[in-house]
Amino acid sequence: MPDAMTAPVSDGFDQMARDAVYRAMFTRRDVRSHFLPAPLDDEVLARLLLAAHHAPSVGFMQPWNFIVIRDAARREKVRDLFLAAREQELPEIEEERQALYRKLKLEGICESALNICITCDRQRSKGSPLGRWHNPEMDLYSTVCAVQNFWLAARAEGVGVGWVSIIEAQALKSLLSIPDHVTPIAYLCVGRVSEFAPKPDLETHGWGRRLPLPELIMSETFCGQGEASLKSAVARLNAVDTVQATACPADQRVAPAVPQREPPKEESALSLSSLNFDDASASLMSQAGSGTWPAMVLK
Amino acid sequence: MPDAMTAPVSDGFDQMARDAVYRAMFTRRDVRSHFLPAPLDDEVLARLLLAAHHAPSVGFMQPWNFIVIRDAARREKVRDLFLAAREQELPEIEEERQALYRKLKLEGICESALNICITCDRQRSKGSPLGRWHNPEMDLYSTVCAVQNFWLAARAEGVGVGWVSIIEAQALKSLLSIPDHVTPIAYLCVGRVSEFAPKPDLETHGWGRRLPLPELIMSETFCGQGEASLKSAVARLNAVDTVQATACPADQRVAPAVPQREPPKEESALSLSSLNFDDASASLMSQAGSGTWPAMVLK
Repeated sequence: MPDAMTAPVSDGFDQMARDAVYRAMFTRRDVRSHFLPAPLDDEVLARLLLAAHHAPSVGFMQPWNFIVIRDAARREKVRDLFLAAREQELPEIEEERQALYRKLKLEGICESALNICITCDRQRSKGSPLGRWHNPEMDLYSTVCAVQNFWLAARAEGVGVGWVSIIEAQALKSLLSIPDHVTPIAYLCVGRVSEFAPKPDLETHGWGRRLPLPELIMSETFCGQGEASLKSAVARLNAVDTVQATACPADQRVAPAVPQREPPKEESALSLSSLNFDDASASLMSQAGSGTWPAMVLK
Repeated sequence: MPDAMTAPVSDGFDQMARDAVYRAMFTRRDVRSHFLPAPLDDEVLARLLLAAHHAPSVGFMQPWNFIVIRDAARREKVRDLFLAAREQELPEIEEERQALYRKLKLEGICESALNICITCDRQRSKGSPLGRWHNPEMDLYSTVCAVQNFWLAARAEGVGVGWVSIIEAQALKSLLSIPDHVTPIAYLCVGRVSEFAPKPDLETHGWGRRLPLPELIMSETFCGQGEASLKSAVARLNAVDTVQATACPADQRVAPAVPQREPPKEESALSLSSLNFDDASASLMSQAGSGTWPAMVLK
């Protein structure tokens, strides 16, 4: 074969373009607290929806719909559903964490510019379930990919998105007249924001911590040891000196993300150097210069 | 409040950075046919995994693990599972589409550089199900967000990814020693590619077509009429002159993605102008100049 047939494709992403894609991922936040009253232009929202619409879908099914909710009275009703669900969920949380749970702000339904409910039509490919006969949930997963595209595009547009999952699905379906064969996947609060927090809120408030990625990597089988070189490469990205020791079985291998007993930390003041990056990364940035890849990696 | 408190945040994404994020989404493909035998550097794979690890997760649960599968014999066994599952799925496909189904290449398990199985540990936040008491499937959805981050980062790195969903999950769990409390979410073929096809394979081969996005947008409730301005903005992005008429109920509103009775089209030859863009977009590009936003929108 000529070289042109076997050489990797020249794909049009230079270093800056790659960095932009990673930056959207590393600085995306689940926004609850920082929505502004500013409206969101239809031109911007159209781009976000087009991004969602270009998600992968099983059998090219494109099972999604987008319900845009602007009406204040309806949003108050959705918020009531959230408040009721939160009261139901609270007793299920470990007792010593319930006070912290109560303090967390977990939605921005009424103060965001608008809400969007992204749904999955389970019947859209009836008769030709390519890729779904063994795994019928694949259409739900396709719709989640659309949510993530929407979220990342929003980050690149400076638009905040928060996913409200503390809500009773059947009550939401009634409120939005969603028929039986359609599943609501994500209820999103969407709008302009005053800031994107440097870390996830739940990390800032001590609810959880970022797990060490090398411990989440396995070789060949679940809990399979190996991939030392890959884990070292990951550790270098994380600016961690050594790969942390791992041990199977799985429940010993990965410390649970929760519970964390540490007291809530103070949120760091917003500054140019901390915006979008945590302290370690900001420090790395000043060492390495901004814009180079490892400099933008969150710890 | 001072203006600085209410003005939208300056978020560090200029036009080129935003374009890069959209380009990753619009040119991402579910790759089956174009894998090269070239290995994938651990440094690149580490970045893709870090991108996945920065997906949103319910209650900051980070329920994912990444099983890296390189062994040729194991991959052949996975491919056998795919072949068996395809034979089981075939009779479920409408009879007049079965010949086309047989012709479609639906996996690149053995010819890609490596495979990755991304799993969801359902027990990782046991005791503190923040955001999951009403919707326990949220951890599965979080893991799908990790898959989509991985996929988009791969596109920006020039790495192809294909998601194999035609496989019996329990058989895959046995083969990879995945315990009961862990759910395999995505089995991915990953590697360098000779090209990213200008359109999804299933569109090229006439299995389905891209649905008109304006018809997927609803106002306030499911099937709610409205959002004319937003739909017009979407239609302009799509270079469609008029918003297509819509009619409820839902099964009349959106033509099913399948079946399509059109004969398979010939795949267009790879050229600089068609790479990553369909013909309409390539034409738009030459009119509008490359790099401006609407020029890169796929129809």
